Amino acid sequence: MNRHPDYLLNRVNNPADIKSMSLEQLKQLATEMRQLVLERDAAIGGHVGPNLGIMETAIAYHYVFDSPHDKVVWDVSHQCYPHKMLTGRKLGFLDPDHYGDISGYTSPEESVHDFFEIGHTSTSVSLAVGLAQARDLMHPESNDNIVAVIGDGSLSGGLAFEGLNNAAKLHSNLIIVVNDNQMAIDKDQGGLYKGLKELRDSNGKAENNIFKFMGLDYKYIAYGNDLQTMINAFKDVKDIDHPIVLHVNTLKGKGYQPAVDDKMDWHWQPPFDIKTGKVKETTNAENYSDAILTELGKQIDGGVPVVALNAAIPGVFNLKQFQAKYPDHYYDVGIAEQDSITTAVAMATAGARPVVFQNSTFLQRAYDQLIHDMALNDAPVVMIVRGGTIASDSATHQGTFDISMISNLPNIEYLAPTNVEELISMLKWALKQTEQPVIIREPEKKLLHGKASQDDYSLIHYDVARDGSEVAIMAVGDFWQLGIDVCEELQKKLNINATLINPKSLTGIDQNYLHHLSENHDVVVTLEDGNVSGGFGETIARYYGPKAMKVLNFGAPREFADNVPLDVLYEWYHLTPDQIVDDIEKVIHAL
Amino acid sequence: MNRHPDYLLNRVNNPADIKSMSLEQLKQLATEMRQLVLERDAAIGGHVGPNLGIMETAIAYHYVFDSPHDKVVWDVSHQCYPHKMLTGRKLGFLDPDHYGDISGYTSPEESVHDFFEIGHTSTSVSLAVGLAQARDLMHPESNDNIVAVIGDGSLSGGLAFEGLNNAAKLHSNLIIVVNDNQMAIDKDQGGLYKGLKELRDSNGKAENNIFKFMGLDYKYIAYGNDLQTMINAFKDVKDIDHPIVLHVNTLKGKGYQPAVDDKMDWHWQPPFDIKTGKVKETTNAENYSDAILTELGKQIDGGVPVVALNAAIPGVFNLKQFQAKYPDHYYDVGIAEQDSITTAVAMATAGARPVVFQNSTFLQRAYDQLIHDMALNDAPVVMIVRGGTIASDSATHQGTFDISMISNLPNIEYLAPTNVEELISMLKWALKQTEQPVIIREPEKKLLHGKASQDDYSLIHYDVARDGSEVAIMAVGDFWQLGIDVCEELQKKLNINATLINPKSLTGIDQNYLHHLSENHDVVVTLEDGNVSGGFGETIARYYGPKAMKVLNFGAPREFADNVPLDVLYEWYHLTPDQIVDDIEKVIHAL
Repeated sequence: MNRHPDYLLNRVNNPADIKSMSLEQLKQLATEMRQLVLERDAAIGGHVGPNLGIMETAIAYHYVFDSPHDKVVWDVSHQCYPHKMLTGRKLGFLDPDHYGDISGYTSPEESVHDFFEIGHTSTSVSLAVGLAQARDLMHPESNDNIVAVIGDGSLSGGLAFEGLNNAAKLHSNLIIVVNDNQMAIDKDQGGLYKGLKELRDSNGKAENNIFKFMGLDYKYIAYGNDLQTMINAFKDVKDIDHPIVLHVNTLKGKGYQPAVDDKMDWHWQPPFDIKTGKVKETTNAENYSDAILTELGKQIDGGVPVVALNAAIPGVFNLKQFQAKYPDHYYDVGIAEQDSITTAVAMATAGARPVVFQNSTFLQRAYDQLIHDMALNDAPVVMIVRGGTIASDSATHQGTFDISMISNLPNIEYLAPTNVEELISMLKWALKQTEQPVIIREPEKKLLHGKASQDDYSLIHYDVARDGSEVAIMAVGDFWQLGIDVCEELQKKLNINATLINPKSLTGIDQNYLHHLSENHDVVVTLEDGNVSGGFGETIARYYGPKAMKVLNFGAPREFADNVPLDVLYEWYHLTPDQIVDDIEKVIHAL
Repeated sequence: MNRHPDYLLNRVNNPADIKSMSLEQLKQLATEMRQLVLERDAAIGGHVGPNLGIMETAIAYHYVFDSPHDKVVWDVSHQCYPHKMLTGRKLGFLDPDHYGDISGYTSPEESVHDFFEIGHTSTSVSLAVGLAQARDLMHPESNDNIVAVIGDGSLSGGLAFEGLNNAAKLHSNLIIVVNDNQMAIDKDQGGLYKGLKELRDSNGKAENNIFKFMGLDYKYIAYGNDLQTMINAFKDVKDIDHPIVLHVNTLKGKGYQPAVDDKMDWHWQPPFDIKTGKVKETTNAENYSDAILTELGKQIDGGVPVVALNAAIPGVFNLKQFQAKYPDHYYDVGIAEQDSITTAVAMATAGARPVVFQNSTFLQRAYDQLIHDMALNDAPVVMIVRGGTIASDSATHQGTFDISMISNLPNIEYLAPTNVEELISMLKWALKQTEQPVIIREPEKKLLHGKASQDDYSLIHYDVARDGSEVAIMAVGDFWQLGIDVCEELQKKLNINATLINPKSLTGIDQNYLHHLSENHDVVVTLEDGNVSGGFGETIARYYGPKAMKVLNFGAPREFADNVPLDVLYEWYHLTPDQIVDDIEKVIHAL
């Protein structure tokens, strides 16, 4: 039910509806919409600070410009809630029953006012340049405005720079709004921000101006959270005939004190209490990230020159406490995934022990650095990767490609532990390597205790948890528990005493064991929590290709899934113990 | 045999040997070394302009600094010949019998003066920052100099910007030499170069300075090909206690007029005649790239809004003539692979028909743009990829990862034509798509004529060139001829009339046909000219995993190969018809 039938926003069905509103009405809209951002995020979680800070920019944009003829590309699009409220999707914010109708990012499937599905940073300028190029080629008479909005934090990503560099070649309309709230997700990192500060401090008048250096026109707007100011700013540049940067100073979290006070935590929050600003469910349960950091601390205390690197996502790995305790051993490169790997390669080559913390979905941005910089140079970088598992997340952040991304590359060992003791054993071994990068897939599910069955992973020896016959289950990493469940189901339903194997590695295979397995097994089943295409299971299928052994690979298909509940996904992907045992049964019957 | 026993260079066994030389002697060295660059390149091909232009920088570097305590990272390292001549590897240039001893890029295996194996651009600053970070962490008392050399062309690559941004955070020695020769491989692209020109034109005094903007110290050197000037410049900054940019103006190709006159062609040349500057073997044979461009021309003439995009490598695809004929339909983003994809996504979304020309090894730099920007948005980008095949190339440029990189991603159709008519048929279909990116793997081997067996590739129907029994050969793209040869060998040696299949697609599989194949075949053999790990063959192995069919996958193993002759590689990888038939025979005997 609509919680605010009295809100002015109810009158807005499309952006044109705000054009006749008075400034006071627009300000009222801003107040209402801030409340709605908070209510939605408090209920289901979401981006808080970015949406609160962009409010006046979004309202002024739709007041001045004519969407969708004029087109705006929101970088990352984690600040698109106000835009969504004004473009026909207000119910996704007014009515809790409709929260689920609306995704957290721009989505062409939802609205003609959204042009791209976006969730990664630093793409908006290149996208806007492409829209402008297409406009100029196909409709040279068109005077549609193309607007890119990009945060100061996103500017450190190399793609943003590539986009700006080519934007300067345009001889036609392009408006680049640099939304400068002095934050990446964590603090901004790097020299760029010294320059931006001088621009802010001089009210945009500093001679030294990176945008002008590149030939871009430039204007500074000091009060980006003042509605009239933003309306005037947009009116001034509307229909401009060349590219211009509008450098707009805003306050991240504007209008909600907890979000202003702690900008990193309030970048994105799980459900919280609006009054107190307290997150509803926090857990102090032991977790894999803390276990890793405890071990790194021990290593540093023991004199090992460990450096924990990340690219603007310390929160994902609980790195802030580590940073406080070991400031010289912590390095955040900002939003710059490529740089995080290449710098780590050089550190490792010089004898330091870099440990790079990456999200699978963002590591995609450094694929060539994995190949050409890291693997080719046999650089003993250690990396911890999270987020590769099948998840009920936004498709923009789907991380299930990590196994096909990493495990098919030369010289890299990609390990998948099944419990915390094994994880730490692998980490210790990884830190001792001098000739090889080692990547560890940090488990995502509930922490399991167990043991490590080897402490030297130079040669992988499969760990056999159950020694059975007929059917062998190879359960990788986070699907270890699923492997146990499938074995139990096989016993119960088919009276098969299956063998259960922990393969540990996503790269190397234990050929001796696989050969030996043929003696008293007919079917090998692989279970991997990721994209099955190009994954671990196919390596096993290839190994047994010329042999009599039957192989069944389970994992996610080659597709995107957008915010689908995990149990539904498992059902779709044939990943419940029932379904898996049914599939095995069919193969056995055909033998 | 040493062709120049009289050269002063013969006295140089390590960099220290030049420290006692007079300026005149050093100038003589430069003259000799330029001649040696030309002789080696004229004989075996190689980078010409970059090595000629960097000569004085390299000599001055080793005269002033103390390698390998001081460390220099050459970006791309395609300008490392002078460095190699001064660091114990002169025979690789003086003696044609030893040309093969020395690779074209820096190589830690060759020398302690080389720190990384490098062949891709824009990495040197991040690498140097990593070396500096490791130095500061592990040896805070050290006063070793760390030097990065990076060309102006490489600065447009986003990673270079990420590196500069983080370089500015250092509070210790780092010297970044921006070798400004006013060229990428082709002309520089983008607004950055307007700014660099203003710096050159003002002798480094322009207020607007991107390096200073980022907090980096800065000096301009107008005469970078003057030895005394470069020696003084390096002496001035040696042991500096903070990061500084030395912006050095040089002439690409300096000392060899043909290379000065045509800087793009002389960036890299195959064997040529030094006197005339004529390349020895040119071919006017018909080739796949020209066929593609002819078709694009037809489409443009017919009103289709095609845009041919590339990232600084027009020469690889013969794009210069196309550019001259269709300037509005040509777009070079400079060295900025990420931007090339993201911009193309937006163009395609807006209704234009971007066709992106990429080298497989460089496309690695845009992996996330393939996933998050292109595939997730179902953007109907068309892409032509070269360089994926197994080749006797430098490991730095090994492109064999393209199939595992692309074909495991959702929503993308990756097609592998076997002849030029099929290629054009695929291209025409690709240009008609509105909901899906299509990538075509341009064949590398001798152009074959044939026919297209379908013109709509929405559903892949395998083309059966020979309908046999027992053994089926699936020969992909450039391995089509190998497939024919294997069939003949099977007939001859085992009297087997094998089926020969052209699968056409590296992504979709023709399940009906594969099912039907089981009726009278026992063995399926896949032949793919690329990395077998995560490749096409594994998809087939997975399909047949639970079935009786035996599958044998052939391709390159998960490894780097560095300048190995192709016939040797094929032998190593078990890719000769003989070896393949032997392997098939073993499987048949075990049936």
